[in-house]
Amino acid sequence: MTDGPSATLLIIGNEVLSGKVEDQNGPFLIRALRERGIETRELRIIADIPERITRAVQELAGAATYLFTTGGIGPTHDDVTIAAVAAAFGVGVHHDPELLRWLHERHGDELSPARLRLAEVPDGATVHTGAAAPMAVIQVHNVFVLPGVPALMRLCFDQIAEQLGQAELYSRSIYLNIGEAAIATAVGEVQNRHSDVAIGSYPSFERGPYRVRLTVDGRDRDAVDRALADLERVLDPAWRVEPPD
Amino acid sequence: MTDGPSATLLIIGNEVLSGKVEDQNGPFLIRALRERGIETRELRIIADIPERITRAVQELAGAATYLFTTGGIGPTHDDVTIAAVAAAFGVGVHHDPELLRWLHERHGDELSPARLRLAEVPDGATVHTGAAAPMAVIQVHNVFVLPGVPALMRLCFDQIAEQLGQAELYSRSIYLNIGEAAIATAVGEVQNRHSDVAIGSYPSFERGPYRVRLTVDGRDRDAVDRALADLERVLDPAWRVEPPD
Repeated sequence: MTDGPSATLLIIGNEVLSGKVEDQNGPFLIRALRERGIETRELRIIADIPERITRAVQELAGAATYLFTTGGIGPTHDDVTIAAVAAAFGVGVHHDPELLRWLHERHGDELSPARLRLAEVPDGATVHTGAAAPMAVIQVHNVFVLPGVPALMRLCFDQIAEQLGQAELYSRSIYLNIGEAAIATAVGEVQNRHSDVAIGSYPSFERGPYRVRLTVDGRDRDAVDRALADLERVLDPAWRVEPPD
Repeated sequence: MTDGPSATLLIIGNEVLSGKVEDQNGPFLIRALRERGIETRELRIIADIPERITRAVQELAGAATYLFTTGGIGPTHDDVTIAAVAAAFGVGVHHDPELLRWLHERHGDELSPARLRLAEVPDGATVHTGAAAPMAVIQVHNVFVLPGVPALMRLCFDQIAEQLGQAELYSRSIYLNIGEAAIATAVGEVQNRHSDVAIGSYPSFERGPYRVRLTVDGRDRDAVDRALADLERVLDPAWRVEPPD
């Protein structure tokens, strides 16, 4: 598929890996980014271990237009994301004056060391505050640092969503009542003729209205339509079924 | 936390990254492995791109006792997992005689190239067949190759679950009606005194019966109990609340 804006996602949280909660942030971000035409290239869920976060940030920030991290933001010993992101860019952390002022307004003059950690940001970071979210979103280069609690994460994403822009991304589907093996060669040849789109083939093993869903995704509407027409040409019309509801 | 058997998970599928379906395999495997005392260290979701799969298999197979991959198994152009796993170990692929026999029984003497791909396995692989699943599970070294369709994946996991063994893994929780910042320092000190367990702190921002859940996980029951007793010593009993239902 032709390149466009892309994202990688880093979900930081022992609670997900230990099965205590299911990750909701990855599925939300995948959908919300896709609505803006941003293709998610990779998602990783890793533990709250600073060196692992640092390495993953280095790898994932370089692999896409944007990296979004969720989790590990807060006052406790397992909240290590800010320092790990700073280390990924070889910078230190400092207390952001605006966040300090906000903490003082809320909690008074005396801030415990634990609370003070909530004002820490990597050197050179941009601090996005605004009406949408009750906390700031910290940005370092192309990395956006979001909280792990899903309701808060969504508000924070809304805070910065506008600046991500809007790209075109078209997707069409064809549903067939024939098995994948019978069409595999023909579909593979269509993909080879249309490298500017991505063709997916997804079998359904539940008894239902279709056996295979073919998808055509691309950045250019004409390219998607051309590949779709080529698929329709090589597939027997008798195999086509209506899309499920 | 003291080391025990561990796993990494590699979810292969454009359909998840493009938001067409939500991944069900990761959450299932995390829970099923945890029930066997196997700790999941990392989960990655990546696209059906052979070089990326190969690199991820190399990284993740070396990072845990077991690596489980899901997806990219089948007859179509986007089913590239078998060849990519083989490449990760520097071996080729061949047609497994038992799988060929099974395909011939089902589809007759003439097998199309697309169907023949369903018998491909990496050289040196173990092919696990059995009553539990309608298809084979392919194992290469410590890597188990599972299908992407959730219902099939679960049957395949059941096929090989016994041989993963059963390790001890204890988890206890304490629920508190106080904010995280007020307890962060004390909880961090308990974690420092008990490196043989993992202490997690999870705030709840919904109005409910508790504000923080502390968890203590470990391989040794006595170690978990000792850390729990230390937490109870440093936390005011007035903060404790009953676990939610």
